[in-house]
Amino acid sequence: MSVVGGNHRVEILLEALPYIREFRGKSVVIKYGGAAMEQADLKAQFALDVILLHLVGISPVIVHGGGPQIGALMKKLGKEPQFVGGMRVTDAETVEIVEMVLVGKINKEIVGLINHHGGRAVGLSGKDGDLLRAQKRLHRTASGEEIDIGLVGSVEHVNIEPIRLLEGQGFVPVIAPVGVGVRGETYNINADLVAGEVAAALGAEKLIHLTDVQGIKGTDGRLISTLSRKEAERLMQTGVIDGGMLPKVESALRALHGGTAKAHIIDGRVPHAILLELFTREGVGTEILL
Amino acid sequence: MSVVGGNHRVEILLEALPYIREFRGKSVVIKYGGAAMEQADLKAQFALDVILLHLVGISPVIVHGGGPQIGALMKKLGKEPQFVGGMRVTDAETVEIVEMVLVGKINKEIVGLINHHGGRAVGLSGKDGDLLRAQKRLHRTASGEEIDIGLVGSVEHVNIEPIRLLEGQGFVPVIAPVGVGVRGETYNINADLVAGEVAAALGAEKLIHLTDVQGIKGTDGRLISTLSRKEAERLMQTGVIDGGMLPKVESALRALHGGTAKAHIIDGRVPHAILLELFTREGVGTEILL
Amino acid sequence: MSVVGGNHRVEILLEALPYIREFRGKSVVIKYGGAAMEQADLKAQFALDVILLHLVGISPVIVHGGGPQIGALMKKLGKEPQFVGGMRVTDAETVEIVEMVLVGKINKEIVGLINHHGGRAVGLSGKDGDLLRAQKRLHRTASGEEIDIGLVGSVEHVNIEPIRLLEGQGFVPVIAPVGVGVRGETYNINADLVAGEVAAALGAEKLIHLTDVQGIKGTDGRLISTLSRKEAERLMQTGVIDGGMLPKVESALRALHGGTAKAHIIDGRVPHAILLELFTREGVGTEILL
Amino acid sequence: MSVVGGNHRVEILLEALPYIREFRGKSVVIKYGGAAMEQADLKAQFALDVILLHLVGISPVIVHGGGPQIGALMKKLGKEPQFVGGMRVTDAETVEIVEMVLVGKINKEIVGLINHHGGRAVGLSGKDGDLLRAQKRLHRTASGEEIDIGLVGSVEHVNIEPIRLLEGQGFVPVIAPVGVGVRGETYNINADLVAGEVAAALGAEKLIHLTDVQGIKGTDGRLISTLSRKEAERLMQTGVIDGGMLPKVESALRALHGGTAKAHIIDGRVPHAILLELFTREGVGTEILL
Amino acid sequence: MSVVGGNHRVEILLEALPYIREFRGKSVVIKYGGAAMEQADLKAQFALDVILLHLVGISPVIVHGGGPQIGALMKKLGKEPQFVGGMRVTDAETVEIVEMVLVGKINKEIVGLINHHGGRAVGLSGKDGDLLRAQKRLHRTASGEEIDIGLVGSVEHVNIEPIRLLEGQGFVPVIAPVGVGVRGETYNINADLVAGEVAAALGAEKLIHLTDVQGIKGTDGRLISTLSRKEAERLMQTGVIDGGMLPKVESALRALHGGTAKAHIIDGRVPHAILLELFTREGVGTEILL
Amino acid sequence: MSVVGGNHRVEILLEALPYIREFRGKSVVIKYGGAAMEQADLKAQFALDVILLHLVGISPVIVHGGGPQIGALMKKLGKEPQFVGGMRVTDAETVEIVEMVLVGKINKEIVGLINHHGGRAVGLSGKDGDLLRAQKRLHRTASGEEIDIGLVGSVEHVNIEPIRLLEGQGFVPVIAPVGVGVRGETYNINADLVAGEVAAALGAEKLIHLTDVQGIKGTDGRLISTLSRKEAERLMQTGVIDGGMLPKVESALRALHGGTAKAHIIDGRVPHAILLELFTREGVGTEILL
Repeated sequence: MSVVGGNHRVEILLEALPYIREFRGKSVVIKYGGAAMEQADLKAQFALDVILLHLVGISPVIVHGGGPQIGALMKKLGKEPQFVGGMRVTDAETVEIVEMVLVGKINKEIVGLINHHGGRAVGLSGKDGDLLRAQKRLHRTASGEEIDIGLVGSVEHVNIEPIRLLEGQGFVPVIAPVGVGVRGETYNINADLVAGEVAAALGAEKLIHLTDVQGIKGTDGRLISTLSRKEAERLMQTGVIDGGMLPKVESALRALHGGTAKAHIIDGRVPHAILLELFTREGVGTEILL
Repeated sequence: MSVVGGNHRVEILLEALPYIREFRGKSVVIKYGGAAMEQADLKAQFALDVILLHLVGISPVIVHGGGPQIGALMKKLGKEPQFVGGMRVTDAETVEIVEMVLVGKINKEIVGLINHHGGRAVGLSGKDGDLLRAQKRLHRTASGEEIDIGLVGSVEHVNIEPIRLLEGQGFVPVIAPVGVGVRGETYNINADLVAGEVAAALGAEKLIHLTDVQGIKGTDGRLISTLSRKEAERLMQTGVIDGGMLPKVESALRALHGGTAKAHIIDGRVPHAILLELFTREGVGTEILL
Repeated sequence: MSVVGGNHRVEILLEALPYIREFRGKSVVIKYGGAAMEQADLKAQFALDVILLHLVGISPVIVHGGGPQIGALMKKLGKEPQFVGGMRVTDAETVEIVEMVLVGKINKEIVGLINHHGGRAVGLSGKDGDLLRAQKRLHRTASGEEIDIGLVGSVEHVNIEPIRLLEGQGFVPVIAPVGVGVRGETYNINADLVAGEVAAALGAEKLIHLTDVQGIKGTDGRLISTLSRKEAERLMQTGVIDGGMLPKVESALRALHGGTAKAHIIDGRVPHAILLELFTREGVGTEILL
Repeated sequence: MSVVGGNHRVEILLEALPYIREFRGKSVVIKYGGAAMEQADLKAQFALDVILLHLVGISPVIVHGGGPQIGALMKKLGKEPQFVGGMRVTDAETVEIVEMVLVGKINKEIVGLINHHGGRAVGLSGKDGDLLRAQKRLHRTASGEEIDIGLVGSVEHVNIEPIRLLEGQGFVPVIAPVGVGVRGETYNINADLVAGEVAAALGAEKLIHLTDVQGIKGTDGRLISTLSRKEAERLMQTGVIDGGMLPKVESALRALHGGTAKAHIIDGRVPHAILLELFTREGVGTEILL
Repeated sequence: MSVVGGNHRVEILLEALPYIREFRGKSVVIKYGGAAMEQADLKAQFALDVILLHLVGISPVIVHGGGPQIGALMKKLGKEPQFVGGMRVTDAETVEIVEMVLVGKINKEIVGLINHHGGRAVGLSGKDGDLLRAQKRLHRTASGEEIDIGLVGSVEHVNIEPIRLLEGQGFVPVIAPVGVGVRGETYNINADLVAGEVAAALGAEKLIHLTDVQGIKGTDGRLISTLSRKEAERLMQTGVIDGGMLPKVESALRALHGGTAKAHIIDGRVPHAILLELFTREGVGTEILL
Repeated sequence: MSVVGGNHRVEILLEALPYIREFRGKSVVIKYGGAAMEQADLKAQFALDVILLHLVGISPVIVHGGGPQIGALMKKLGKEPQFVGGMRVTDAETVEIVEMVLVGKINKEIVGLINHHGGRAVGLSGKDGDLLRAQKRLHRTASGEEIDIGLVGSVEHVNIEPIRLLEGQGFVPVIAPVGVGVRGETYNINADLVAGEVAAALGAEKLIHLTDVQGIKGTDGRLISTLSRKEAERLMQTGVIDGGMLPKVESALRALHGGTAKAHIIDGRVPHAILLELFTREGVGTEILL
């Protein structure tokens, strides 16, 4: 490397300085999923991003999903996945498969990934230390009818003690979106919503959703950089925001309501999207503010 | 209850006093498995035992196995379990099933069980915080030949930091016997041996194996109450101790070598076998001493 | 012991579990006196009860009396005890005898008793660290006249710092009911009332009076299990509660007023009455609630 | 006061500065007895000395005796004190009187005295927290015969935990020389010897004996200012040091052996003898060094 | 020294006792200047006073000026000092000289002086840790006109963190009255006013101004011992307090407003004036109260 | 910025990751001087480098010189600088000028510079908390003669307590190379040597000299990248290293001897030379190893 090249490098390091200063000592909740969780190079880049955050004094908290892998195991076991309004109908056998895949496979892959790249991660299910207290969630159809879709839950209470314990000792918490009910029953919970609840409970500085799209697009099909809470709500009501984007925006609004300063919906297919968002002026994707 | 009955009760409470005093502030590693992990009433009794230990200031650390459940899922997935010398031949697909069942199903059931009865448990896989660093273990046949049985590992190093972190904050650690290699690969490890290594690494006061037999029996078929390390080694060499009892005794010797005061092989089919062992004069099963 | 017997024992241990959980980390003030302080077997049982409480994480604080022993020494010294309305007329010579007996004899016997059985107790007089600030108490006769009965005091202020210091380091505080006035003068204070004031100042979970009766009896002569504050006040006004029971009930009401959850008047002649009260469902004697 | 007078005063304050600096944060054990414990003005001066020490960051630990008062109560109770070789023959009844007077009367007077002048003192008997573990001490006559003189003890072990606990929280510990045996029995111990053992166990900076003489005198009847350990031993062997001075010098040697830097035998009849010794160049009485 | 002389000495030590008790653990801000900072004997006496305060648990905080030495260096450098309304006109070259003299010469002399006499001092400029945030101060003439007198500042904010850090570790902070503006520019600030601001920010117990006069004098030319805030304000309005006394009284009022209990203006030419004020009944100079 | 550009940026951020991990929690002593201390852009870059180090958990400790500025003030004051063997002849008047310039001007400029860019710096002279205990250093001529060159000192002892205090609270210590003798006298010390002594006393991870040359050059005039201690010593003896480079290499050897892992002599004229050295693979200048 020539000295000029080196100097160029440190200029870039220094550009990160104000961001490091701003986010230091704060929690950033990252909803991890999609391509970033499937492609080998993106996975490694994600791990490095998390480790860098941790080293410069920011506290990343990972929440992950796992839809495709759940479906794959169900198929292998000869069980046909069923969805109502985008939510998985979850009988007792299904919730067991969901838990095995999320907690015993995906969570462990992420923990291993971060540790293998030199970080220190510990996985948590919503059952560990009663982290995610859940209750049954019915599906409400367009016509207002409520349909029982089985062991699908919503977060009733986040017990942040195990998260704080791990953060305090320098471990990155990696959370699987499985909740536990008052009778000890297991609930399958939407990972996007868990991320929003965790961000709200922690009073996290940021909530970042890694997705497989560029961000939220307006009616003209162009990416929206910044969105106020009010505007986001309007776009949901008018159906501009719909489908899989709905729980992400709901989650963002929940986090903002709980004290999170900004929520981001960014493109996880872009290498190091997290660092780009956190440490450069331009940012990527859509940010939602109060 | 008559006053006489009450007084009888407190007499019994007071009998536990010297044992509480002796074990207070110390770790007791419990290998949990067999009937005690399968029958509903024994499971509830186990949870209460663990909680009582915890409340009187003893620090229980649970290590669990899961053989039958692993076999069940393999069968459902059309995979025939194969064993060589009692050890499961573990290909890449199998180790994934092993991990899902141990970490995503059994570990969570135990955590949920303890929490549901009023305790505070957090599950750990050997990957969490690099708890169980493992290396490949070959099978050595009677003729001395070494056979590759796949992703079966032995414990190279126990990183006790996550265990101590949880103990220090009043959580009961529940450990699944899955290890991680230097290249991030997953290993299936014998749970009995993990329990012995964890007890050794913690310098635990006791290691307790919950089994489905009364204890170790001599050549005359009678239960042996106390066994020295030397005697245990002799019984292994002469084949009196064999089969599934071998890893339990190996585990006990490993723990003793690492500083554990006593190892116990007790009958998990007896209700509250743990409390009987810890808090009454007679004890149950076989104890192995230095 | 047969296995069945053992199991019976652990069942009883487990019955204590919810109570241990409830009272853990909390202070329980015990007024110690009467037969429980005189008979050798009851004394040993009291010591074991206190030690067990301490071992399971409850913080016992002992307040003791000493009427009979004071009288005995006075007689030896040729001094005739005098009482007005149940209170000892206390001249300068008498208060010196009271202090010697309470602080130098009884307090030390109790401290020695607990330590000898394996506990860790430290005695405190009301003078130590200005624990019990007292003022002169006049006796008011039925006709409303106030009579000077000498150095008899009432508690003006409890300085809990020395108690908390001992509790925090794992010592059981044993308190003699001697107070100190603003001019440094010594006061003889009713031990029942001291116990109530100490419980109130500590915000103790429970106040337990060990007495030589079964509890409070109603007009029909039957034991009253539970009494509200209002009912207790009515029974005092109507004279159903009278004599030596009066200061115990006053003390209970004072403690409840200060934040104590429940006060108990129990039969100290029953072996292990404290454990029976704390760790069994039935309880013993009379409880007074807000 | 004229300004000149004031300035004179501060000059004197400043003379104390090097001594304060030297002794700050260190323990000074003071054996309190004789005239300083009997005359009202000397008592008040002693209290002020102790409080000043405490305020400037030195940690005074008081050990007191009580011979005359014990004799007085024995006489009142019609019991004739008996001495063998200067040691009180102590039967069961006598040891009870000794304990009541030392712990219940004298200790409390000293605690009250210090608190009344604005200090913070807490009294300790050797039974509190097993502070003074004792064993039976036989009297050895000049002819080498051993005579049983009853419950007279020597210190076997000083448990400094309660002393350190009080010092750490800013309380002055006041210790009564009563010990406890392994079977819980009470022992009367020579207060001079207790002071030496306590100084040794604490590794105190100084041990100061307040006596009713000027110090140790040589064969020529003149006060000896400084004495080495060797010289002190020689003076004991040649009988120049004898009688009541013997246990004081024994105590001094014990303290020096245990790490105390200097032991002092000073004249407690001189007002503020402690401050004179600690804070002025000249010192008073006799100092014994290694 | 005769014993009588010694006793006289300790009497004087004991007179300081109530003052030590009163001021222990509290901060006392001392504005150091004038003769006390110039004469060798007064300097040594000042150092001893500060060390004694520190040793008895009081926390002295020194603020110093340096007018004459600044003038001397300016003259050497051929720069004529200019004053407007008693304030130094401070151009860029002058502020550099001011800073060098205050921070690099006087501050270091004081730090060295205290350390040399056995204390532990650390110097701070207003730039260290942004201790004194300043803004430009214009001079307002009698006619109400505002004149720019250059880099003369007033305190906008005192950041007490560095002071508390030093106090907490047993160092005496010595502060030079140089402030820093938002653009990093250096300001010359009146040391009297800095002392008042620091006392207010610390909530100091006392503010002591060492001056070259006896104190504040009334219209009759007699020293005023005590002055209320209101009276002080009246004396300023009526011109009885004027000249160099004005910023001292302003500083005192600022400190009182910020929570300081008493401000003192005392005669630094009197040896040990600080100790006389703090530790004797009479006090010296003028005290100003709320 | 295009996404590609952003991604390039984060790649560079991530290159720093292994270095951040390696140096985290460790002290790096930086000798600051030359062009980097004179040119406005280099000064700002230095401040940013220091702040970035600090933000990523490394603890920078700055030692600065000030030769040119000292000479400038001396000239203004009409004093002719004199040098013997490269060392400034320092009379009493000169040492006062040295101290004023180093402590009151340069040190404050650096502190202000770092704070102004958003850091938290506190300056220390060697007098603060007796940081640099010094003794007189004579100049030894080639002929072995020792010449008195006045108040020039060498470091006898570094008291690291004030440095650790500041580091522990998140302040960057900035040290002026002025020492204090046992009689309180001021010494002018070579800043390079101070940096080496401070690095040794701290057991710093690295010592970095910012100079106005590329590094150490061999006999062939080419930059030497790495030098062992032995080689450095040989180059000094053979005169290849000479002049102003001598104290820098001496300082490096002193630091290595005291436990510092590596010493660097780098080119302070290169922008961000510190970050280039610490956070890129190539490094800059010459490194000296054990």
